[in-house]
Amino acid sequence: MKATVLVRPKQGILDPQGEAVETALEHLGFAVSAARVGKLVDLELDADDPEQARAQVEKMCEQLLANPLMESFEVEIHG
Amino acid sequence: MKATVLVRPKQGILDPQGEAVETALEHLGFAVSAARVGKLVDLELDADDPEQARAQVEKMCEQLLANPLMESFEVEIHG
Repeated sequence: MKATVLVRPKQGILDPQGEAVETALEHLGFAVSAARVGKLVDLELDADDPEQARAQVEKMCEQLLANPLMESFEVEIHG
Repeated sequence: MKATVLVRPKQGILDPQGEAVETALEHLGFAVSAARVGKLVDLELDADDPEQARAQVEKMCEQLLANPLMESFEVEIHG
């Protein structure tokens, strides 16, 4: 079973990488009013049941993949 | 208009960060057979039309957000 985790800086948390991307895009002439940079993790899991897989991946996020003080996460399970 | 860009290392490209995540998850006792790490960029755009927004974001990916030799990208436009 495959899963994708999207990890984003929480609202109000400074995101210097996002600010750098926004500035660079503006310098290239793009009309961008905000940019925030996060990370994504694609996982292959040994799990049969989507609900069980989701529970496992949420635990992974809490223990390793996301910093709960500064980041929010979203889990997508792909069949 | 909002957009999310997902940037992933292409198949066959080494991904040391993904390997580190996989090893760490295994050490924590999770049943993971592969992990790949990419990045995501959330953008706010000054564009009215979804198709125009998508074309703009694809140009941003080609010029700045993704390295076409090593990374693939996916663009999601949110109303």
